[in-house]
Amino acid sequence: MIRVPAESPGPFPDAWRYCVGTGRLDLALRRDYQDSLALVRREIGFGHLRGHGLFSDGMGIHRPYTHRGARHVHHSFTHLDQVVDACLAAGIRPFLELGFMPSALAGGDDTVFWWRGNITPPRDTAEWTALVRATLTHLVGRYGAEEVRTWPVEVWNEPDLPQFWRDADEDAYHRLYEATAHAVKEVDAAIPVGGPALSPGARGWLERFAEFAERRDVPVDFVSRHAYTSGPAQHVPFGVHQTLAPAGRLLDQFAQPRRALAGTRLAGAPVHITEFNSSYRPDNPVHDTAFHAAYLAPVVVAGGDHADSFAYWTFCDVFEETGIPTAPFHGGFGLLTHRQIRKPVYHLYAFLARMGPDLLTRGDDHLVTRHRDGRVTVLAWAPVDPTGTSPVPARHPLRLSVPLGARGRGEAFVRRLGVDEEHGNAYAAWRRMGSPRSPSPHQLDVLHEAAEPARSHRRLPVTGGRVDLPLTLARHEVAFVELTRVSDETPPWWDERRLLGRDPG
Amino acid sequence: MIRVPAESPGPFPDAWRYCVGTGRLDLALRRDYQDSLALVRREIGFGHLRGHGLFSDGMGIHRPYTHRGARHVHHSFTHLDQVVDACLAAGIRPFLELGFMPSALAGGDDTVFWWRGNITPPRDTAEWTALVRATLTHLVGRYGAEEVRTWPVEVWNEPDLPQFWRDADEDAYHRLYEATAHAVKEVDAAIPVGGPALSPGARGWLERFAEFAERRDVPVDFVSRHAYTSGPAQHVPFGVHQTLAPAGRLLDQFAQPRRALAGTRLAGAPVHITEFNSSYRPDNPVHDTAFHAAYLAPVVVAGGDHADSFAYWTFCDVFEETGIPTAPFHGGFGLLTHRQIRKPVYHLYAFLARMGPDLLTRGDDHLVTRHRDGRVTVLAWAPVDPTGTSPVPARHPLRLSVPLGARGRGEAFVRRLGVDEEHGNAYAAWRRMGSPRSPSPHQLDVLHEAAEPARSHRRLPVTGGRVDLPLTLARHEVAFVELTRVSDETPPWWDERRLLGRDPG
Amino acid sequence: MIRVPAESPGPFPDAWRYCVGTGRLDLALRRDYQDSLALVRREIGFGHLRGHGLFSDGMGIHRPYTHRGARHVHHSFTHLDQVVDACLAAGIRPFLELGFMPSALAGGDDTVFWWRGNITPPRDTAEWTALVRATLTHLVGRYGAEEVRTWPVEVWNEPDLPQFWRDADEDAYHRLYEATAHAVKEVDAAIPVGGPALSPGARGWLERFAEFAERRDVPVDFVSRHAYTSGPAQHVPFGVHQTLAPAGRLLDQFAQPRRALAGTRLAGAPVHITEFNSSYRPDNPVHDTAFHAAYLAPVVVAGGDHADSFAYWTFCDVFEETGIPTAPFHGGFGLLTHRQIRKPVYHLYAFLARMGPDLLTRGDDHLVTRHRDGRVTVLAWAPVDPTGTSPVPARHPLRLSVPLGARGRGEAFVRRLGVDEEHGNAYAAWRRMGSPRSPSPHQLDVLHEAAEPARSHRRLPVTGGRVDLPLTLARHEVAFVELTRVSDETPPWWDERRLLGRDPG
Amino acid sequence: MIRVPAESPGPFPDAWRYCVGTGRLDLALRRDYQDSLALVRREIGFGHLRGHGLFSDGMGIHRPYTHRGARHVHHSFTHLDQVVDACLAAGIRPFLELGFMPSALAGGDDTVFWWRGNITPPRDTAEWTALVRATLTHLVGRYGAEEVRTWPVEVWNEPDLPQFWRDADEDAYHRLYEATAHAVKEVDAAIPVGGPALSPGARGWLERFAEFAERRDVPVDFVSRHAYTSGPAQHVPFGVHQTLAPAGRLLDQFAQPRRALAGTRLAGAPVHITEFNSSYRPDNPVHDTAFHAAYLAPVVVAGGDHADSFAYWTFCDVFEETGIPTAPFHGGFGLLTHRQIRKPVYHLYAFLARMGPDLLTRGDDHLVTRHRDGRVTVLAWAPVDPTGTSPVPARHPLRLSVPLGARGRGEAFVRRLGVDEEHGNAYAAWRRMGSPRSPSPHQLDVLHEAAEPARSHRRLPVTGGRVDLPLTLARHEVAFVELTRVSDETPPWWDERRLLGRDPG
Repeated sequence: MIRVPAESPGPFPDAWRYCVGTGRLDLALRRDYQDSLALVRREIGFGHLRGHGLFSDGMGIHRPYTHRGARHVHHSFTHLDQVVDACLAAGIRPFLELGFMPSALAGGDDTVFWWRGNITPPRDTAEWTALVRATLTHLVGRYGAEEVRTWPVEVWNEPDLPQFWRDADEDAYHRLYEATAHAVKEVDAAIPVGGPALSPGARGWLERFAEFAERRDVPVDFVSRHAYTSGPAQHVPFGVHQTLAPAGRLLDQFAQPRRALAGTRLAGAPVHITEFNSSYRPDNPVHDTAFHAAYLAPVVVAGGDHADSFAYWTFCDVFEETGIPTAPFHGGFGLLTHRQIRKPVYHLYAFLARMGPDLLTRGDDHLVTRHRDGRVTVLAWAPVDPTGTSPVPARHPLRLSVPLGARGRGEAFVRRLGVDEEHGNAYAAWRRMGSPRSPSPHQLDVLHEAAEPARSHRRLPVTGGRVDLPLTLARHEVAFVELTRVSDETPPWWDERRLLGRDPG
Repeated sequence: MIRVPAESPGPFPDAWRYCVGTGRLDLALRRDYQDSLALVRREIGFGHLRGHGLFSDGMGIHRPYTHRGARHVHHSFTHLDQVVDACLAAGIRPFLELGFMPSALAGGDDTVFWWRGNITPPRDTAEWTALVRATLTHLVGRYGAEEVRTWPVEVWNEPDLPQFWRDADEDAYHRLYEATAHAVKEVDAAIPVGGPALSPGARGWLERFAEFAERRDVPVDFVSRHAYTSGPAQHVPFGVHQTLAPAGRLLDQFAQPRRALAGTRLAGAPVHITEFNSSYRPDNPVHDTAFHAAYLAPVVVAGGDHADSFAYWTFCDVFEETGIPTAPFHGGFGLLTHRQIRKPVYHLYAFLARMGPDLLTRGDDHLVTRHRDGRVTVLAWAPVDPTGTSPVPARHPLRLSVPLGARGRGEAFVRRLGVDEEHGNAYAAWRRMGSPRSPSPHQLDVLHEAAEPARSHRRLPVTGGRVDLPLTLARHEVAFVELTRVSDETPPWWDERRLLGRDPG
Repeated sequence: MIRVPAESPGPFPDAWRYCVGTGRLDLALRRDYQDSLALVRREIGFGHLRGHGLFSDGMGIHRPYTHRGARHVHHSFTHLDQVVDACLAAGIRPFLELGFMPSALAGGDDTVFWWRGNITPPRDTAEWTALVRATLTHLVGRYGAEEVRTWPVEVWNEPDLPQFWRDADEDAYHRLYEATAHAVKEVDAAIPVGGPALSPGARGWLERFAEFAERRDVPVDFVSRHAYTSGPAQHVPFGVHQTLAPAGRLLDQFAQPRRALAGTRLAGAPVHITEFNSSYRPDNPVHDTAFHAAYLAPVVVAGGDHADSFAYWTFCDVFEETGIPTAPFHGGFGLLTHRQIRKPVYHLYAFLARMGPDLLTRGDDHLVTRHRDGRVTVLAWAPVDPTGTSPVPARHPLRLSVPLGARGRGEAFVRRLGVDEEHGNAYAAWRRMGSPRSPSPHQLDVLHEAAEPARSHRRLPVTGGRVDLPLTLARHEVAFVELTRVSDETPPWWDERRLLGRDPG
Repeated sequence: MIRVPAESPGPFPDAWRYCVGTGRLDLALRRDYQDSLALVRREIGFGHLRGHGLFSDGMGIHRPYTHRGARHVHHSFTHLDQVVDACLAAGIRPFLELGFMPSALAGGDDTVFWWRGNITPPRDTAEWTALVRATLTHLVGRYGAEEVRTWPVEVWNEPDLPQFWRDADEDAYHRLYEATAHAVKEVDAAIPVGGPALSPGARGWLERFAEFAERRDVPVDFVSRHAYTSGPAQHVPFGVHQTLAPAGRLLDQFAQPRRALAGTRLAGAPVHITEFNSSYRPDNPVHDTAFHAAYLAPVVVAGGDHADSFAYWTFCDVFEETGIPTAPFHGGFGLLTHRQIRKPVYHLYAFLARMGPDLLTRGDDHLVTRHRDGRVTVLAWAPVDPTGTSPVPARHPLRLSVPLGARGRGEAFVRRLGVDEEHGNAYAAWRRMGSPRSPSPHQLDVLHEAAEPARSHRRLPVTGGRVDLPLTLARHEVAFVELTRVSDETPPWWDERRLLGRDPG
């Protein structure tokens, strides 16, 4: 039995909900997207939202035209205003990623994704920095400098990969970063700017970025990278399968920037993991499973030890990098499918959002916190086997001695929520329903119902100020348990035996 | 095993949802009430709403005044319009009960209830009929004759009880009925009028009402009575306990009017049971229990055999006959507590609302119906023991052979919802929480959560066009089961073994 | 003075609101679009919605893939379901236009519009008809045959223009039509199919289409064409100017199909004008003006004489044929701008939606109807000068003698709404504000306010059952006037002179 | 011409919106009330809400019962929680008035109002203080001490009037105050407590209250009184007429506490005018008129000079002191009628809510403020004649020289809203409609429409950094004018002459 200490060693850090990822920004114009955003904001409470495509053609910002024979560029914010208004209305702030290249400013035709984000350097740096300045200036004008200073600005995405930056040209990226960072600071020196938004495989890039920044005296207010644990994609139609490394590998990746930058000028800079997930593919069915929630639970709980934020990629399945999804469960990144069906990993985050501000203890399969009103909350998870080599048991036992209020005897009201292979698992229901590609409204209702966690409650005795809490976790279960000391208001005249139908047992 | 026939013998009648009861009409001005009404309308779909107090002072319709020395009466519809607008906005129609007496028209000071409904005859019959005519005329003007003709009009409430009609004066009631019925018909002959809204204990009243109606040639478009099964109240502070007769006694009461009126001019008249419940007290804890849902299940399923409607008394706990409730669970009549916590009996009705239009079979512990799209739905319930003399078993087994689509092999998706002593039972959770009288917002959230039914799903084989469906019901369980034939869209390339974390078992 | 007859010669036809146009269908996924759709549905009540792009890549329906070395096509309805669900939720039905070509099925690379709708014939007719059948079959399965039979299906768009159909190849269109119409009928013979959706300039196409249909015995349940009155585009950056023919030219175009088809097998077929507007350009400022409402008023009032429907192109400015709009007022087709600012022409439609079912009279500058409750409603409009050659006066007088209830004296409550150069004219306000490209939230509030019509009310005497109603219309005004006979409930004790601050005059 | 200074002498104080009055607290359970509250909160932004009846029987807090032969009291918060939750959900805080007396604790049967508030002292002071303590303790437990400390607590209402406090017994009030204030402080010493909530006619009470508080060392955190200007009621059925003193008399009353308390221990205490209006009757038609808004405008603008708050009595017509209203316009106190029709005085407040934080100048007929973004806003009002002896002119001219941005030339966008005898005046429309007692839904729509202010906009030149703003106010007009410096974004290629239908003039 694990004895949870009664004194808190400190707060449970908020890094897990600082930011979350999203599909390309113009998808934020959609109702399904906005409904999903409102839901995750209400039930999870992410602070920022980061996605690609701010400067891509679908946002319509960079608009060249000819007048009296001369080329001009108009900067238009029709879509950007709607996107940012929608975010702020939902209570979530932009984490601005500057990219990709507007086609009329692009140095080439190379694109990434089904929606063709142009990944080439600008053919005119002055036109690019004018675009950056105009955009930031507009945002400051519309939303106020005080607000915009809380929006980190990241330069480009994964420049170390040729899919995202032509030839993965490191010098070209440094040049882009330098011009861009200065352009941002010209608008308002207090707007934080950073990069280089590296992919997991980048070798030496971060060190060289630090060295470049020092050499050129370029502003870097934070550093960023991404983290994924999947192997190569094995394709099937509309999907892939991949192997996964153990989840701890994600924590290693989160920790890498602080290690790499120790001793450089960027040593103290905030580290933002601006994307993380198991698989980097939006069509890997693992994202939809109970396994996935249990796999990521220890990462989400411990990630704050290693980075200032780590952004789950992505909050919903309105996302089209490999095309428009062909089924409600298609292996998308989202915490939510289209139409707001909660996946198991959604519940992992929603459970975490119900934890208290004061950490009591943490372990391999549990996290215990306390609320200011005295409630104690437990997050517990079963072990997983991503390799398929050491199958996990059907039941995982865990027993905690939980401090609950002052010493003495009493009773605790214990509420438990759980998701596993059977519960809170709309994917399992969908498979049983026959994997309907276009579920009917009735089927959507059933899927929403199947996505609700298992719920139960009971009373346990408090002895010596403690509750002996035995938990048995099902396969791939993630459980949330809340313990509240009972203050009994049952009136003195109440006689349970007079209630009709009471259990005689 | 019970073999459910594949052919429907006919429709499952809708009498169970024709009407539902409510606390006094001016409570309909409240937001909590309107929110509750919208919820029951959406999830259950009652057609009409009947409550006391249309002419009581809280509705402010009858408004005498003096002008130039003479007494006049103004008929004012400020509240009535808001009440009826709210009902119609929720999609539910009034079932008008004409009563009680405005104090300025009353023949005495006798009142009923904490809110003092005056139960005396009018001191001026012409002023009463003017009130009736003015009210109906106003309603026809505002909502149209076509609409108002769908609103039955019932004269008074339980005149056979001295608490509700001074001295239970039968002749006086007949006079009131006659004057009132004619007044209604003067406004529009197609508005249905009826009575006499008798209490369960009325002896001979219905026969004499028929005889009176024939003798005086008075219009009677329907007859009405009430049904309850509880014994005398044993009081505790803010509550009572009572014995209950077996639920079948309710069906006897439903059936009594057709028996009593056989051979009279009213033999063919529609019979509306305008109130029914187990206990007639709004402070008996039985209303809040899982026992109550299981007790009433066979009544709600079979009631349509005996009457054209039977109105559960009442849809929500916004109801103040014995005073303002002092706790969220106080034994109120409501399907819903204040703030829309669903009670087990709410789910009984919500499950019934999901049954199909075509009856397949009915039994002591089950009802099976079919939807037009082929889904088969089962309502099943465990036996109860209201007397405390023959305790029910902890498990009640039931096994059905359910026809599902054409002959041949296949699979069925089976979805089950259930409420019992542990599930869908906010009352049990509230007791465990310590019976908080004024639950905090967090406790209200937990109670809403605890009120959700248990949910599960599985696949069962279809053999020879049938599913062998074993159901084991828990103590006091009411279960809803839906069977859908699976049309499998799993693509040919899907290989379950490639899914990470799949159960190797 | 025009004497309005007291007897109605018949109903005012509903052709004006049978259908309305929209930008490409996947824009229906946007929140701004859905909010706009809900608004026009509530305040105007269009029955159907027609737009391009059902089969374009942005809807993601046609999805080829390779499995075990063979090419297959999956038909995916992820977006289509969301689009149709959104329409039906708003209470509006699809008018399905089958087109453009999925790029993976296209016979060439030619595209139209900024969003690149492919305008080439299918490279495989069987794959095209499979796509049509699969889509209709899916819709019938999801929404029911009874529902889908109310959705007209139109084959392609403006095949007589090379921008919309490669080489404007008439035979190729006939082949496409024939294959498509048969495919639709295979799904359900009661689904109406038609075409050929001609542009205004098509010469002889309709006659040849009728002849082809007869010769090949191809089903044609309705015929369709478009109507516009603008001359060639004179370009400026992000916009055009054009001349306009007099509005009566639109009525000529509406009338052309019945004339052309007289004597053919299609003589009795319903005629749908599936697009009409003044200018065919989505960047002509005329669409935003008060002039435009007054220009179209006589067309909208009289159009029902000539066609079974005529669909305003389009209901809102979420529309991107020439790119993403760069300002809230950019000359878009919409009745509404982005963010639901009502344009003057929106009010023309909203006023028409308030007219009664019974026509009383119609004239060059007015329409008078009566409601079932006796109210009389007038739509009146000032003359316009599209040519700039005969400037219109600042004031246009009109005087009507309006029958209002039975003969005799009394009073009328007269309510007037109007839009003109100063009122209900957000465009004028926007120009005065300095034409802000990205209005701030406060500016948007002011624009919404400026878009509200002028409102006034007064009392006029009724003499001999008639009201002498003088109306003076401002420049480009469209006015709505409602006359109600006053039923005075002022109590006898009311003495106006006792009201403090009353006008002594 | 009045030259508005360019420099602000200081902020415009917020006293006008610190608090607003309401009908008895249990009316807050109604939907109409809550809808009205949400509206005034959104458009006006009152901070607190004060009403009678917290301890009256309709709130059901004081609940005596007998158990085992002994009398006990249960304190029940079923309604209070719903009321406070509703306020806080609307963003408005309670200003708690402790009263009237629960009937089971009352020392007598005397009541006030149609709803019978008991106005007698407690028959047991200990039971009263237990009630106060229990209620405050519950509120602190539910909403937190930090929150409840922002809710002033006022002891009783108008004890100087025998209608509100038996025999207007001053010593009995002092005893009640003392016991109550100590009970409040026992719960939390930081909760502000005060009184004595005097009526306008109280003579010497405040001075004696200060002397009593000093003598007995009783906590008094604020002092309160009421202000009205009407003469005696002249009754008609369902209404009254009264004379009114000039509005300046209200300011005298606001100023009286500071004068009276100068030199006492309460000299520095905050002064809350916890009720004010012209007439103290809820059935005087003056409340519904445009006259009323113009009459109160100078009071609302200047009141902050004299008191820390002054609460308009009341925010809506859901109010029943003289019975349930018999018509939508019945002379109620409300800023809003039932169903949220805005009265002219509502607009006075809504206009004030749009004024900027920085005062520029104030005068007899105007107030000018500036927003942080540079906009200048003007509130202007026409003179009134409450006595009927010196009729006001039909037009009231006013001319301001308004500083707008830096020196130099330019243009201003000027937006004007106004309410007067013709505009923003639903009462005038209702009279013209024939004073319908129970307006139909269509009539309600027309009344909402008629309640909208007149709106116009224009451009004026800026010369030397100033706009010459001539305003002509109509009879009883209250106008809001907003001036914004135009930043012109009209593109260089725009040629107004090319716009079809442009005014050639």
